[in-house]
Amino acid sequence: MGDYREMWKGLNVDLEKHDILCSALPEQFGEIYLKQENRPEGMNYFNYVVAEVHGARIMELENARKEGRKVIGTFCVFVPDEIILAANAISVGLCGGSQFWIEDGEKVLPKNLCPLIKAFTGAKVSRTCPYFQSCDLLIGETTCDGKKKAWEILNDYTPVHVMELPQMKRTQNYELWVEEIKLLIERIEELTGNKVTVEALKEAVIINNRKRRALKRLYDLRKNTPSPISGLDSLLISQIAFYDDPKRFIEKVNELCDELEERVKTMKPSGKKRIMVTGTPMALPNWKLHSIVEGLDAEIVVEETCTGTRYFENEVAEDGETMDEILKNLADRYMGVNCACFTPNEGRIEDVLRYAKEYNVDGVINYNLSFCHTYGVEYNKVEKALKDSNIPVIMIETDYSEGDTGQIKTRVEAFLEMI
Amino acid sequence: MGDYREMWKGLNVDLEKHDILCSALPEQFGEIYLKQENRPEGMNYFNYVVAEVHGARIMELENARKEGRKVIGTFCVFVPDEIILAANAISVGLCGGSQFWIEDGEKVLPKNLCPLIKAFTGAKVSRTCPYFQSCDLLIGETTCDGKKKAWEILNDYTPVHVMELPQMKRTQNYELWVEEIKLLIERIEELTGNKVTVEALKEAVIINNRKRRALKRLYDLRKNTPSPISGLDSLLISQIAFYDDPKRFIEKVNELCDELEERVKTMKPSGKKRIMVTGTPMALPNWKLHSIVEGLDAEIVVEETCTGTRYFENEVAEDGETMDEILKNLADRYMGVNCACFTPNEGRIEDVLRYAKEYNVDGVINYNLSFCHTYGVEYNKVEKALKDSNIPVIMIETDYSEGDTGQIKTRVEAFLEMI
Repeated sequence: MGDYREMWKGLNVDLEKHDILCSALPEQFGEIYLKQENRPEGMNYFNYVVAEVHGARIMELENARKEGRKVIGTFCVFVPDEIILAANAISVGLCGGSQFWIEDGEKVLPKNLCPLIKAFTGAKVSRTCPYFQSCDLLIGETTCDGKKKAWEILNDYTPVHVMELPQMKRTQNYELWVEEIKLLIERIEELTGNKVTVEALKEAVIINNRKRRALKRLYDLRKNTPSPISGLDSLLISQIAFYDDPKRFIEKVNELCDELEERVKTMKPSGKKRIMVTGTPMALPNWKLHSIVEGLDAEIVVEETCTGTRYFENEVAEDGETMDEILKNLADRYMGVNCACFTPNEGRIEDVLRYAKEYNVDGVINYNLSFCHTYGVEYNKVEKALKDSNIPVIMIETDYSEGDTGQIKTRVEAFLEMI
Repeated sequence: MGDYREMWKGLNVDLEKHDILCSALPEQFGEIYLKQENRPEGMNYFNYVVAEVHGARIMELENARKEGRKVIGTFCVFVPDEIILAANAISVGLCGGSQFWIEDGEKVLPKNLCPLIKAFTGAKVSRTCPYFQSCDLLIGETTCDGKKKAWEILNDYTPVHVMELPQMKRTQNYELWVEEIKLLIERIEELTGNKVTVEALKEAVIINNRKRRALKRLYDLRKNTPSPISGLDSLLISQIAFYDDPKRFIEKVNELCDELEERVKTMKPSGKKRIMVTGTPMALPNWKLHSIVEGLDAEIVVEETCTGTRYFENEVAEDGETMDEILKNLADRYMGVNCACFTPNEGRIEDVLRYAKEYNVDGVINYNLSFCHTYGVEYNKVEKALKDSNIPVIMIETDYSEGDTGQIKTRVEAFLEMI
């Protein structure tokens, strides 16, 4: 750990405060993750990644930066990682899932704002996240009011490039997104000094598709009854996807899937209720809902969230040969994400209904981060569609605090008994 | 009133529920408005408009519809009334300011959403607003997450055309807004069967500019110390601007201004603190903050809100001769509105600082409707800029309920003593 302290100091981390943050994680992780029974061997790698969350990976970023590579922070599944990779830069997802950062976030943001935004803002303001401190540039987007306006505040602390995500999915909106990707390329080329070439972009498309395919393989395995992996473990893998080295991550996920494929041959019925979670993302280390649900007689088998299917569904077409073709393919794939930020967003309803069948779920938990308006309002449509299909659904709106854990547990318990 | 009941019934108004709504307004208006001392004679017209709020004006709309004209509901200062007028249709602003509608709004929307959105949605869902019931089409826009998603729900009850407002103010965004205005024209031409001609649009530009100029004249008069008109009365006029007949409204505002110009010649210092309100709009009959502030030793002399300066500042250039020129002029004017929905939105900070000087204010109240994220987050910048200029500022976040009236009064009182 000695080396890390020097490194953190060099990154202008508030060491004392950071110590407090670091001291809480091992216990939380031990309590929630390591106590699970019969975990796959392949989870060892991901346990290691968490144990080294502010250590080994930050050291890799440091070493890369010493070699002249740039580190770019992102906050959303709409920002095309392919561009960052093609410029030989490294992308890290910076969404915050810890209650620890809320207090500092609330120093510059309203209290009644989504905890994810307050957390990532607090992480930067308090200088307690080495990922933030490693970033040469942040990429924001206009996916929701809270984030859109938070970039203005973050920009007081560190440079932010904001991509304007269209709010509809008409033909012209797809074209607009191509233009926004072009502006992103300009900015990243300027930052890195590297040209985003057709060749590099083609390769980046292939790598990111392989990552999507690995996650899809994992999720497909969860369609088995029972699932060969817990929802908690799957969630952790999705969370790590946002900041791990892509090639190593793909390899480790596939190794795990090899093991799970063996597992499903011998697994016996568990009788556990199969649950889909749909709604807002769960950033590391937000394991609150999963640990409540899986602490009861249920397993979460699919997350229709940004830290779930929305992250990996739909590949970028690999047939692009010119820059224009590749950019069009990128725009088509990313605009295909069915986020509640779009109006209308019927595609998400179709996804939810389709997953309910594909994953053979007994019930759906609509998870909403407090004060998230887009998903909060869209619940009206989600609820209607599920009820029309006779699929039980419950709405859980919560933040990162522990105050409502007992109440949520009681509600989920009642829900599980009912379905 | 007999005639009105038949008319309301024809509009499919829920008569019983509507009676409850109507019974509350006269007392509220009497208590807040009519008890003011020494009001201008010219306010009599606006008193009449309120007294007849669901009567005489609705009858006018009915008569117009019988003649084949269409009524179009809007919710935002970004929707260009000029287009509606040029198609010989009538626009009415539908933002709701009454606690009465909240309960019905919350049947289809989350509780922790801005009261304005819950109110207008509740008004439609409950069929208790004859303006909604008179509309042949609603025009939504993507100015905030709550509204953007609420259109999807309203669309289940009545047709809604949504304009995608850009989220930034780059050159390309201005061009996009021109395209959105063109789509609006298509939709309105289709609805009305009328062509939006260059001539009609030129005339509509002139009429709307005259309306802006009348309101600007009223606001300029408020720059006098003391102001010749209360903040409450000015607010009422702004609220009525959204649904009154434009030509009559212009005439009545100008008549009032003639009177106020005489008034200022003889007014004596009142010693009242001069307050600017900045922030979110106050839709009819939301007079909550103004009645609290003006019940104390203060006068509100300017509102930097959508029911204030943002509604009338900046005219549409009248030099457009072709359709393209006029549409560009319209886009330039509307995109010039400094709403917190844009990122960044430095123009608003400049406006607030400029008004503070022009209106010679002693302090600023940043008014935020509960859960409004864009203005809520932007307060960080507003507060900093005002403090840097040594202008006292206080943040009041509230909804339409009366539960916090005492608390707000205490806070405003303390603020007034301090400044």
